[in-house]
Amino acid sequence: MKRFQGIIPPVLTPLNEKRQLDICGFEKLLERMIANGIHGVFIMGTIGEGPMLGSKIQRQLIDETLRIVRGRVPVLAGVSDAAFSNSVELAKYAKHAGADGIVAASPSYMKLADCELIDFFRELAVEAQMPLLIYNMPSMTKNYLSPQLVEKLSELPWISGCKDSSGNMSDFHDLLLRLGNKDDFSIFIGPEELISDAILAGADGAVTGGANVNPALFVNMFHAACNKDMAAVNELLPKIYHLRRLYSVVSTPNAIARGLKCAVKELGICEDFPVAPCRTFDDRQRAEVIRLLKEMSAELAMCR
Amino acid sequence: MKRFQGIIPPVLTPLNEKRQLDICGFEKLLERMIANGIHGVFIMGTIGEGPMLGSKIQRQLIDETLRIVRGRVPVLAGVSDAAFSNSVELAKYAKHAGADGIVAASPSYMKLADCELIDFFRELAVEAQMPLLIYNMPSMTKNYLSPQLVEKLSELPWISGCKDSSGNMSDFHDLLLRLGNKDDFSIFIGPEELISDAILAGADGAVTGGANVNPALFVNMFHAACNKDMAAVNELLPKIYHLRRLYSVVSTPNAIARGLKCAVKELGICEDFPVAPCRTFDDRQRAEVIRLLKEMSAELAMCR
Amino acid sequence: MKRFQGIIPPVLTPLNEKRQLDICGFEKLLERMIANGIHGVFIMGTIGEGPMLGSKIQRQLIDETLRIVRGRVPVLAGVSDAAFSNSVELAKYAKHAGADGIVAASPSYMKLADCELIDFFRELAVEAQMPLLIYNMPSMTKNYLSPQLVEKLSELPWISGCKDSSGNMSDFHDLLLRLGNKDDFSIFIGPEELISDAILAGADGAVTGGANVNPALFVNMFHAACNKDMAAVNELLPKIYHLRRLYSVVSTPNAIARGLKCAVKELGICEDFPVAPCRTFDDRQRAEVIRLLKEMSAELAMCR
Amino acid sequence: MKRFQGIIPPVLTPLNEKRQLDICGFEKLLERMIANGIHGVFIMGTIGEGPMLGSKIQRQLIDETLRIVRGRVPVLAGVSDAAFSNSVELAKYAKHAGADGIVAASPSYMKLADCELIDFFRELAVEAQMPLLIYNMPSMTKNYLSPQLVEKLSELPWISGCKDSSGNMSDFHDLLLRLGNKDDFSIFIGPEELISDAILAGADGAVTGGANVNPALFVNMFHAACNKDMAAVNELLPKIYHLRRLYSVVSTPNAIARGLKCAVKELGICEDFPVAPCRTFDDRQRAEVIRLLKEMSAELAMCR
Repeated sequence: MKRFQGIIPPVLTPLNEKRQLDICGFEKLLERMIANGIHGVFIMGTIGEGPMLGSKIQRQLIDETLRIVRGRVPVLAGVSDAAFSNSVELAKYAKHAGADGIVAASPSYMKLADCELIDFFRELAVEAQMPLLIYNMPSMTKNYLSPQLVEKLSELPWISGCKDSSGNMSDFHDLLLRLGNKDDFSIFIGPEELISDAILAGADGAVTGGANVNPALFVNMFHAACNKDMAAVNELLPKIYHLRRLYSVVSTPNAIARGLKCAVKELGICEDFPVAPCRTFDDRQRAEVIRLLKEMSAELAMCR
Repeated sequence: MKRFQGIIPPVLTPLNEKRQLDICGFEKLLERMIANGIHGVFIMGTIGEGPMLGSKIQRQLIDETLRIVRGRVPVLAGVSDAAFSNSVELAKYAKHAGADGIVAASPSYMKLADCELIDFFRELAVEAQMPLLIYNMPSMTKNYLSPQLVEKLSELPWISGCKDSSGNMSDFHDLLLRLGNKDDFSIFIGPEELISDAILAGADGAVTGGANVNPALFVNMFHAACNKDMAAVNELLPKIYHLRRLYSVVSTPNAIARGLKCAVKELGICEDFPVAPCRTFDDRQRAEVIRLLKEMSAELAMCR
Repeated sequence: MKRFQGIIPPVLTPLNEKRQLDICGFEKLLERMIANGIHGVFIMGTIGEGPMLGSKIQRQLIDETLRIVRGRVPVLAGVSDAAFSNSVELAKYAKHAGADGIVAASPSYMKLADCELIDFFRELAVEAQMPLLIYNMPSMTKNYLSPQLVEKLSELPWISGCKDSSGNMSDFHDLLLRLGNKDDFSIFIGPEELISDAILAGADGAVTGGANVNPALFVNMFHAACNKDMAAVNELLPKIYHLRRLYSVVSTPNAIARGLKCAVKELGICEDFPVAPCRTFDDRQRAEVIRLLKEMSAELAMCR
Repeated sequence: MKRFQGIIPPVLTPLNEKRQLDICGFEKLLERMIANGIHGVFIMGTIGEGPMLGSKIQRQLIDETLRIVRGRVPVLAGVSDAAFSNSVELAKYAKHAGADGIVAASPSYMKLADCELIDFFRELAVEAQMPLLIYNMPSMTKNYLSPQLVEKLSELPWISGCKDSSGNMSDFHDLLLRLGNKDDFSIFIGPEELISDAILAGADGAVTGGANVNPALFVNMFHAACNKDMAAVNELLPKIYHLRRLYSVVSTPNAIARGLKCAVKELGICEDFPVAPCRTFDDRQRAEVIRLLKEMSAELAMCR
């Protein structure tokens, strides 16, 4: 069995109006996901606004997550940053706090050459001395990690898997053909709507932002796809696309995090301020989220 | 007269093998540029590897720069980061240390919408309470700041100018037509090879990376263009393109900083390690830099 | 049953050294594919170098295809061009010659706005008065046809389906959810390596360039996926990736067509000159193709 | 003296409602530009919608232009197309009709590798046997022609110059340093708002779409820049930006051609239908054009 597998949601970071962590809401968010069977949590990913939080809240988030989760599921901490040294410091903090692994995208300011990317992941793993998942997120980092490159990286110590958020299924299949059978190397799909394609083809799991709102939907889909139950897969996929309409309430680049945050707020779970300087939804946008949540009430009833 | 004008080089950050600041070399680098007539210094820009340095060296760099420069020319500190809160903290540090201004690109991880960019610069200026130059660097940040947007931003308190590194001269002229006559708003061109076009058209100055190697060349070009001395301009521009061959020794995205660093090292000024995890030049690359420096020895003799 | 479904290969255009159509070789290529069970042919697609052939060979190709195929499978003719009027003329020629449908990408020179794309497909269908498949090929045309736009286009007269070569599976699923049950609207996947994901999810067929070399492989995969035979799917997909190594023999943008052409030449089927001014493979490249064909000899033995 | 220099406008192609050439209007358009001192005409460029016209109108346009111009200024014919063979045929037609040169962008459908671009221009020149200007138009063709590549191309027979519409002034200066002194090789700037930068730096001329509306403005600017009359340059440049507001009346990719066409129609010169399937301006857009023309009436009074 692989160390990491299943549904590992990128957890939202609930903030209050002062842009402080809403600890109470964060606990409710995590408990609800765990109660619905998710297999791990990934804090400080893109949907968790990780690289935008600043070092103080990043450290607080690691501490609170480990306190709340208490070892029930693995905790993965995102350490992506513009600066290698900041990533190293955050990784060491996560390790000493007791996280199970780190997830690192390439640095976000300046694109690196492939040879520099190898140095980046090697040196980060050497410094952190803990399981590291490679995060392929070209739309944010400008670096595309090709299957060939990930295969090379997989041979480095501590490299324990890959989360591919590129949306490129042609290369995702290639990655599975190269590394799907590698011991203790987990392959996760990023875009949640590709979960059935990915799991049917042999992926180990999915990092699904929508699980913040409807964790049961994604857990059910994971099991359906693992069991190659095509009827269930074909019934669940439209529900995922239904949920995804939350991501088009605004058209800004952070529309996914903002749509999800407003939805969990309206579900009574936590506060929904985005990281500064971005703003929370206005009344008209909030009304649209409420309308969409009503339309998916049958699907939300899946959740405990 | 405008607060900021002339040649304000983006200063290299000399690092030793342990990736610590080479303080002695940094002092020599700054003194040589000041001796050759530059009009200000800009630390922690892209060529200074600012966003990749990590918070510890960033603070040290601010302190050392102010200690060395002693008010002889204005000191501008780059505060670009993936996280707004980190930019705010660095800006406050720069202010209390005594810097003359800050320079901020938009956050580098997630692209912002135009309305969010306005919030970003407004909030940053409110927090920092010091002159702020807007840094248009779309190749790194994914955000293109259009002339219309810069015009809007120019109306906010503390916004004191713009450094445009987009290379888009069509929009740079547009910017000059909109804001060239605005009181205490300085317009700088980023790409050093566009300095003559920019100054002839009315720009206030240039942020020229090559001035780390040959400060006199750019100071001379600035004066030639200000005086509309076309003969001198046409004589100096090929020398700038000559120097720029240092930027093609490698083809990695950080080729400019690496070429400049190796050149100042070979001129006996400072250490030349790039920020981790990148590597310094190998022997073959270093030999090429030495060859290029020899070819431009006549031009380098302009410098004191 | 839908009008168009199954494996409809984009047929290579065999040219001799004088860049004339190799009619004899073209006939062998078509006969081999038909003998192996393909369900239609698509001439003058991207892999067929359609828009680069020029109007004379385009017309000859329509005539020869219809003569050879003799109604055994549907014949689709690509009519993509930089000029709308040229596309109209070619479509009319195809109709009068007896083709079963046309396939049109948006014009390739200047990007169109969405409202102009609607006009483009409406007017083309009005002029051609025959079944038209929309060809989503953003890497060539710069126009991305979103699922929403294709849904709107599907309501126009004569629009009979869509071939999506964008490689964006997130939107392909969206397209299937919107239009998968629409009467007589066929949805084809372009990238051949995504065939299993697409057919399992309900697509009607695939336009697979590799079928020029190994038609049986793709016909078998189509049936395996239609039958939801996951064991067969998982056995066949690696063979498709194996074949795709032909596409990396050179790294030019037309590497796929050139790799496929050289392979069918070496299989003794037809001449392999690309459209002018491109060149055929040199000896070293040809040797690599021969080596790859040897490695896939077991797979090629599937074909009659 | 170079064969081609000065202001050579990319001439609009006036079409009537039936998308036939408005011959009478086209004559008035050409005569007005010649009367105002332009130094040549370039038909079937991007602004002339050349690649979208279709082969019939393309040939008619060549014939009519030569009939009207009667050798008073050089006539350059654009031959850009998706297919090499179509470009060759159009070039031969232009030669036999008596055109002075052809202008060719790289093929627009599939990107070519640099080695293929060399073959493309070499073979086209060999076939056409007439002066050929290289047209660097990456936004339409996806091929960027670097200064190094243009330098190599400049050594081929018949290659007589380059029109650079990339907007990249860093590379344009590089091009001038490499080829500015080459006998009978003319270097033209494409974006009209860069005319002063380009001519001051030594370019031979400019291909200015705005000259369809205000030819005198660009002819005056050309002479001002040639004479290094900075006062005149700085007075004329804002007028060019003023005129360019015509290009933002709509936000479609063909906004420039559509804005210019509507303006010349409202000046009473010719019909203004764009090439099919695009539409002419609606009443609100037309009113905006009329308003802008009024605002620039003083500038338009420069024209005869």
